Amino acid sequence: MSNHAYFMQRALSLAERGCFTAHPNPNVGCVIVKNGLVVGEGWHEKPGTPHAEIHALQQAGSLAEGADLYVNLEPCNHFGRTPPCVDALIKAKIKRLIIPFIDPNPRVNGQGIARLKAAGIEIIDGVETERAAELNRFFLNAMIKQRPYIIAKWAMTLDGGLSLANPAERWITCENARYHAHQQRAQIDAILVGAHTLRMDKPQLTARLTLDGYIKQPRRIILSSKGQFESELLEQIVGDIWVVTAAPTADLPQFPHIHYLHFPLATDITQIDLYQLMNWLFEEECYSLLVEGGGHTLTHFFKTDLIDEVHIYQRVKHSGLLNQPSVPFFSEQENWLLKDVQKIDQTIFIKAIPRGIKNAND
Amino acid sequence: MSNHAYFMQRALSLAERGCFTAHPNPNVGCVIVKNGLVVGEGWHEKPGTPHAEIHALQQAGSLAEGADLYVNLEPCNHFGRTPPCVDALIKAKIKRLIIPFIDPNPRVNGQGIARLKAAGIEIIDGVETERAAELNRFFLNAMIKQRPYIIAKWAMTLDGGLSLANPAERWITCENARYHAHQQRAQIDAILVGAHTLRMDKPQLTARLTLDGYIKQPRRIILSSKGQFESELLEQIVGDIWVVTAAPTADLPQFPHIHYLHFPLATDITQIDLYQLMNWLFEEECYSLLVEGGGHTLTHFFKTDLIDEVHIYQRVKHSGLLNQPSVPFFSEQENWLLKDVQKIDQTIFIKAIPRGIKNAND
Repeated sequence: MSNHAYFMQRALSLAERGCFTAHPNPNVGCVIVKNGLVVGEGWHEKPGTPHAEIHALQQAGSLAEGADLYVNLEPCNHFGRTPPCVDALIKAKIKRLIIPFIDPNPRVNGQGIARLKAAGIEIIDGVETERAAELNRFFLNAMIKQRPYIIAKWAMTLDGGLSLANPAERWITCENARYHAHQQRAQIDAILVGAHTLRMDKPQLTARLTLDGYIKQPRRIILSSKGQFESELLEQIVGDIWVVTAAPTADLPQFPHIHYLHFPLATDITQIDLYQLMNWLFEEECYSLLVEGGGHTLTHFFKTDLIDEVHIYQRVKHSGLLNQPSVPFFSEQENWLLKDVQKIDQTIFIKAIPRGIKNAND
Repeated sequence: MSNHAYFMQRALSLAERGCFTAHPNPNVGCVIVKNGLVVGEGWHEKPGTPHAEIHALQQAGSLAEGADLYVNLEPCNHFGRTPPCVDALIKAKIKRLIIPFIDPNPRVNGQGIARLKAAGIEIIDGVETERAAELNRFFLNAMIKQRPYIIAKWAMTLDGGLSLANPAERWITCENARYHAHQQRAQIDAILVGAHTLRMDKPQLTARLTLDGYIKQPRRIILSSKGQFESELLEQIVGDIWVVTAAPTADLPQFPHIHYLHFPLATDITQIDLYQLMNWLFEEECYSLLVEGGGHTLTHFFKTDLIDEVHIYQRVKHSGLLNQPSVPFFSEQENWLLKDVQKIDQTIFIKAIPRGIKNAND
């Protein structure tokens, strides 16, 4: 491993510390190295607080002059919630900047690099590119596609059952797997279920971890094209929730904590145009969306070709449900790339991403 | 970790070297330690060659006197293919013997321990018991139940499909997963498929690895209660194969490489009594059996409650088969313990064992 890879991996490890708090900002870590020694480190904790580079430069002080600065995202050149980092790097007189890639964010995108070069700072890119892209896939995807990164999540039995025949068994997954799922919820900006799932499971849609209070709760969204809700169902929800519907306001029960988002139906179908919802989420700085079901809602997202990643929690048991289609929403046409598999106690966690339409020779 | 655990783990690592060659003998490794230093090591390679203890004692020479001897299975006290190890331990004047547990093999079972104690050797057991039991589960199970350890293996898609709708796609799994499956075949004594699978897939039922020539091939068995074979199907098989059937000899095509085993049908059903097959396999020193399908044959084994372990190779893709029951043989009543999950390239390898009848609160 080269020194560049070594220090960039350190920067990435620092960046990961922000995974529960930095969003919608990206996860960024920074390491300043002089004569082979680390003289400053930093990471970005949350919006409104200093960027990773600023923390590291403060730690390095005058030692930053002539040093190498490793950061896992191109330093910003614009006034956002904080002043631009590029100015701080030039002022500190660093010698070289090492980054994985140019930031695709249109507000950054190479502009900072140009100013740094003009100031005589050498730029090295292409270091730990893949890992850096994976860490900030929500943010990078949002900047490129102008919509949130969408994860479809579901639990299933070995026979592809999405629920259990035995009403005494509430959960398909084991307790440790559910904790893992809450950790995922704590890292995303918004969470969505269909009205049927709300009615059947009454999910709280919150991230419940022992870190309570430290973590940020995702924005909670219910998708219901028709908007047919029992008044009590909405009333009993604790905390703010957004309901996406095409139904007219007059038909909907009104409560202070229920916020309706009215979107038209997509052409020729009886369902909400999801792209309109995506635009709204992006405007709201929701750069990641977890779609947790049910089958009908997942089908809607799969058919609209909006899934960027799937999280499957699988249990080696039989659902007891016979003659039911298994994972009906799961696309037959899509070719999936398996990214990660973990044994979480008694549950198998599977992470995969689509890689385009399959062909027979694949 | 205690010193005992440390040296027993070393013995287990040595034992694992025999996994492709030692069967039907158990995998055994031995470490001799004097004053904290390893003075002898050995492992059992294959039937007819010296046991692990003998190799280690030869290496230690006179240093074995007063030393600790670690071995992952109780030393034998009987003349099998080689003389008893207990005699060698007593002659070498070792001070202490450290083992994970007493060997359940009725030909060993504590008899050696009694003789060693009588010779003044101290016995310590209960060291790394779980890992030692897992490593030799085929052998230990066979000694206790007097039948082979049975692994049910199948490949499936995410929707529980056992084959693919597209005839151009021959394999559900990826190439690396198939290599993994061949490694499993190379570690077992016998492999079995039903006549339908033989007809459809024409499997060679051999372990094909780059280790070719070094590994032992499993005994190949076809299960066909009715014994209705096309003559050409059997004729084209290369090498010896055993066909288990209830059909009369006169009805069966005769070839030099086809060996028929006639067993009666189980009472009240139209299928072979599998327990009779188990007895025969045990007599033939087949202590492990891999049942590779198809669905009908797996159902037969599952219903007879003969499955000790399942190996599932799963792919994140859709079978394209709709309205087909998924994993029809997989027991609804059984409660499974997930033992291992591995990402093998694009395939998920799942290993689970039954842990008795499930209850709702589990």
